Amino acid sequence: MYYFQDATARAAVGLGARGFLGWAVLDADKTTQHGDPVDNAAGFIRRWRGHPLIQPLPAPQGVYVDSEETWRRTRELADRERTPITYHLSETLREVHDHEAAHGKRPAIWLDEIGFLGPGQIAAHGVWLTRREIEILAARKVAVAHCASSNAKLATGGICPVVDLRRAGAVVGLGTDSVASNNSLSMLREMHVAGLFQKHHRWEAGALGHQELLDLATREGARALGRDAELGSLEPGKIADLSLFNLDHPTLQPATPEAIVSHLAYSASEEAVDSVYVAGVPVVRHRRLEGADWATIRSEAAAA
Amino acid sequence: MYYFQDATARAAVGLGARGFLGWAVLDADKTTQHGDPVDNAAGFIRRWRGHPLIQPLPAPQGVYVDSEETWRRTRELADRERTPITYHLSETLREVHDHEAAHGKRPAIWLDEIGFLGPGQIAAHGVWLTRREIEILAARKVAVAHCASSNAKLATGGICPVVDLRRAGAVVGLGTDSVASNNSLSMLREMHVAGLFQKHHRWEAGALGHQELLDLATREGARALGRDAELGSLEPGKIADLSLFNLDHPTLQPATPEAIVSHLAYSASEEAVDSVYVAGVPVVRHRRLEGADWATIRSEAAAA
Repeated sequence: MYYFQDATARAAVGLGARGFLGWAVLDADKTTQHGDPVDNAAGFIRRWRGHPLIQPLPAPQGVYVDSEETWRRTRELADRERTPITYHLSETLREVHDHEAAHGKRPAIWLDEIGFLGPGQIAAHGVWLTRREIEILAARKVAVAHCASSNAKLATGGICPVVDLRRAGAVVGLGTDSVASNNSLSMLREMHVAGLFQKHHRWEAGALGHQELLDLATREGARALGRDAELGSLEPGKIADLSLFNLDHPTLQPATPEAIVSHLAYSASEEAVDSVYVAGVPVVRHRRLEGADWATIRSEAAAA
Repeated sequence: MYYFQDATARAAVGLGARGFLGWAVLDADKTTQHGDPVDNAAGFIRRWRGHPLIQPLPAPQGVYVDSEETWRRTRELADRERTPITYHLSETLREVHDHEAAHGKRPAIWLDEIGFLGPGQIAAHGVWLTRREIEILAARKVAVAHCASSNAKLATGGICPVVDLRRAGAVVGLGTDSVASNNSLSMLREMHVAGLFQKHHRWEAGALGHQELLDLATREGARALGRDAELGSLEPGKIADLSLFNLDHPTLQPATPEAIVSHLAYSASEEAVDSVYVAGVPVVRHRRLEGADWATIRSEAAAA
């Protein structure tokens, strides 16, 4: 699925969904992509730039398949096209150990020393980070996408130090990662799992509370993507990306103003979502997709 | 809620739900219960014994509020009335440390030495267990109720060694714990969370796989309760406690025989449950409660 970003973009547009879509960039000798991955990413960006729903961007896979040259060219591409960059960072202990063995440096420190790190970047995972690396990511204004379910599912062993990253000043958002490493792409579920793992990790029941979880899933995610002036919260002048919840749903009881954020972060079911608007356009209305029908999606997926 | 087991039993019967309901037993000087808690538990058992849906039982709170005398009397009650016993065991590190400081022994070892441990017992949590304690629980045929969400929510720090307990021969089931320490009482969610935490805990993506998770939620739970001859799986001669799922639901795709157990363990939504039967009687039919209506439940809960 990683090499079919044009199809993903078309599917998102067909549904009316917003997509920040990264083209996977690996060294040319480490991928089944035809041609040069950085050039391919550039082509993808050219094809979709300016689209109201799709933000194309380059996505270096990680230090284990990207050389210094590839990181440098990718950063130049993103700077030239003014796109964000996303990449995997310190997801597994093996990746960190292998990089230290080969380069004498941990990945975040090495990426900083080759001049790669900077604003507009979203580092996914960030599971195995030292205190020094946390400080570097915060200082370089690199955002971290915390993928709690994926990290647990793949048994990476560690847990992203979300609280420490935020205290250091880094921006953190929540990621589901893909269906290859998560059984749900629901941000509701991801808030709940992220909360449980961070409390467990820190032996601190108050860590990553409900308002913070909701922030990570919304406005902090928008900040990570550099779009918080337009997205991520309900404010006059911002784009109307929003979900309406059915306050009668059992997972939102009692639906009082004081309790509702806690319910959203910890207990709300996906079925409590009544309608979804993207840029003011209804994409789901009263639990029915407007731009597609479920029977068709299911049969096309089954046939794929 | 803990001291209103008769009301809980009546509510369960009203809905047609099966309940194994424990009367909280603490030393008389450590509770707001009137009278002697062991005698109160005996009364609760007398009032409900023989009921087709309700299994009353005594539930010692834990070593931090139950003396050796209380444990002994509770075991005598359960032996006499032939009921299971459930209790909290090694949920927090503090409980373990305090008990060691007071008695020179860790809780499971002490409970074994005072002659308490034996078959028909369900120890909830079991978060902080040494290898020796795991062996003792298995040898005494004590079952463990693993409460993954609760343990994480309360930041107990540790994780129940489910895989080690099962390897040692102990029976393990899944528990949600109460709404005071879990935002959902869904066994579907509990399977998913238990799987993620065990994989994380062991650095082993294959730990506690989908069939094992479904087993823990069904037949192993019935074994823990000593009722596996009648409950916990769909077999001729067993009681018809079962849920019917809507195989068209998005969280069950593709709904192939090979994939369905994995979907149930990791991704199924509660809304994928179409109907629920208890002892052959429909309690939920096509997503409607038969013995109550949601509007009444919600308004009564809001008024409580």
